[in-house]
Amino acid sequence: MKIIIVGATGTMGQHLVSALEKEHEIIRVASSGGDIQADITSTASIENMFKQVGEFDALISTAGPTFVGTWKKLDDKNFRNGVEGKMMGQINLVLIGQHYINSKGSFTLITGALTEEPQRNFANASAANGAVEGFVRGAAIELENGIRINAVSPTVIENSPQYFPYFPGEIPTTMKELEYAFRKSIFGAHTGQIIKTW
Amino acid sequence: MKIIIVGATGTMGQHLVSALEKEHEIIRVASSGGDIQADITSTASIENMFKQVGEFDALISTAGPTFVGTWKKLDDKNFRNGVEGKMMGQINLVLIGQHYINSKGSFTLITGALTEEPQRNFANASAANGAVEGFVRGAAIELENGIRINAVSPTVIENSPQYFPYFPGEIPTTMKELEYAFRKSIFGAHTGQIIKTW
Ligand SMILES: NC(=O)c1ccc[n+]([C@@H]2O[C@H](COP(=O)([O-])OP(=O)(O)OC[C@H]3O[C@@H](n4cnc5c(N)ncnc54)[C@H](OP(=O)(O)O)[C@@H]3O)[C@@H](O)[C@H]2O)c1
Ligand SMILES: NC(=O)c1ccc[n+]([C@@H]2O[C@H](COP(=O)([O-])OP(=O)(O)OC[C@H]3O[C@@H](n4cnc5c(N)ncnc54)[C@H](OP(=O)(O)O)[C@@H]3O)[C@@H](O)[C@H]2O)c1
Repeated sequence: MKIIIVGATGTMGQHLVSALEKEHEIIRVASSGGDIQADITSTASIENMFKQVGEFDALISTAGPTFVGTWKKLDDKNFRNGVEGKMMGQINLVLIGQHYINSKGSFTLITGALTEEPQRNFANASAANGAVEGFVRGAAIELENGIRINAVSPTVIENSPQYFPYFPGEIPTTMKELEYAFRKSIFGAHTGQIIKTW
Repeated sequence: MKIIIVGATGTMGQHLVSALEKEHEIIRVASSGGDIQADITSTASIENMFKQVGEFDALISTAGPTFVGTWKKLDDKNFRNGVEGKMMGQINLVLIGQHYINSKGSFTLITGALTEEPQRNFANASAANGAVEGFVRGAAIELENGIRINAVSPTVIENSPQYFPYFPGEIPTTMKELEYAFRKSIFGAHTGQIIKTW
């Protein structure tokens, strides 16, 4: 399979690249670094990325910037980090990418446990995750040619110990669990599902 | 109680006004009509509305424009209807309104069954609903002074027969069920809840 990984240079992305690259052709995308540079907050940049890649079988996104910080600082302006990044960035990967993906291809977006298990400082991510999850359900019944779409929802991951203090009581998702959630979406038959590791 | 109803002139809003106005002081808000005009897609307009109202005890929103239409027309531009309207419009009512609401006051936002039960033509609403529901959970653990926040999630309502053909298999929410869901949020003790009528 030809698989695009958007966010390939990040904590999750690096793990997924090394897990999948032995058996698949991987196109690594990030705003800096990777094989192809694209900024998901720009529809022109996304369109340009798909033009460079050409046809593909699966797109994984692990790119989803949000505002993380105290509630007092959460105003309309800071909220836009998650709206333009994790929410519209990922949604536009699908709205635009559907015109480039092969039939029976799949999109797998990233959300997180915060949708249902909020933590202080992360209301922007809870909202962006919820938007992506609602979109995944709505898009799954609209996409044609057997194209599937799912989201992977981990809680704080094993390789991000810097976040552990912000997620009291959350048993970290292992990198293996994260990888297998993506495998279920890419190689399975599910569509419209939120694949949870918690 | 002094209760602001944003969207007071709409199908839901009119019912809620007449149900609550005998026992409470109601401030009817809409972009045209009502007691006070405000456009929830503008933070300046929201701020101006709260300045005119002054202190209040509860805010209900039944204002939530989204893009309804065929999947083929759902691009970044059309998606912004739900992003600016139902999502950021309602989120900004809370981010700004928290500085005007009385302690122990409540915010009740509108979402809908589409978050989890998608229908064709409504992917934008599924995403906006999901965002609002994620936000409600995230905000509930941050708001201070006993301020509560919930969302009411009805399916297609009894008084909107024009939408029935788009919601096959959905047993319409009665206006009484809708009203009681709002009553649970306003007069009960819940916070961070999605109050479903389905
Ligand atoms: N880490 C966790 O514990 C955890 C748990 C649950 C959910 N999540 C979610 O999972 C996602 C990824 O987490 P992570 O820890 O792997 O993040 P990360 O290490 O910060 O990596 C993010 C990746 O996305 C790319 N990226 C960021 N902004 C971009 C943009 N505008 N356009 C294109 N690419 C962009 C980054 O590359 P460039 O900087 O070069 O753009 C990088 O490759 C986030 O949405 C996060 O909320 C994380
Ligand atoms: N009707 C249903 O069956 C149903 C079921 C589930 C969920 N919902 C959701 O419930 C919400 C309300 O539905 P409804 O049927 O009552 O809608 P509606 O009859 O169209 O009423 C909408 C109300 O919101 C106001 N409004 C619209 N845009 C606004 C803006 N930018 N700023 C301020 N006020 C604005 C309208 O007044 P102006 O036009 O003067 O601004 C009106 O008072 C929508 O979000 C809808 O998605 C509806």
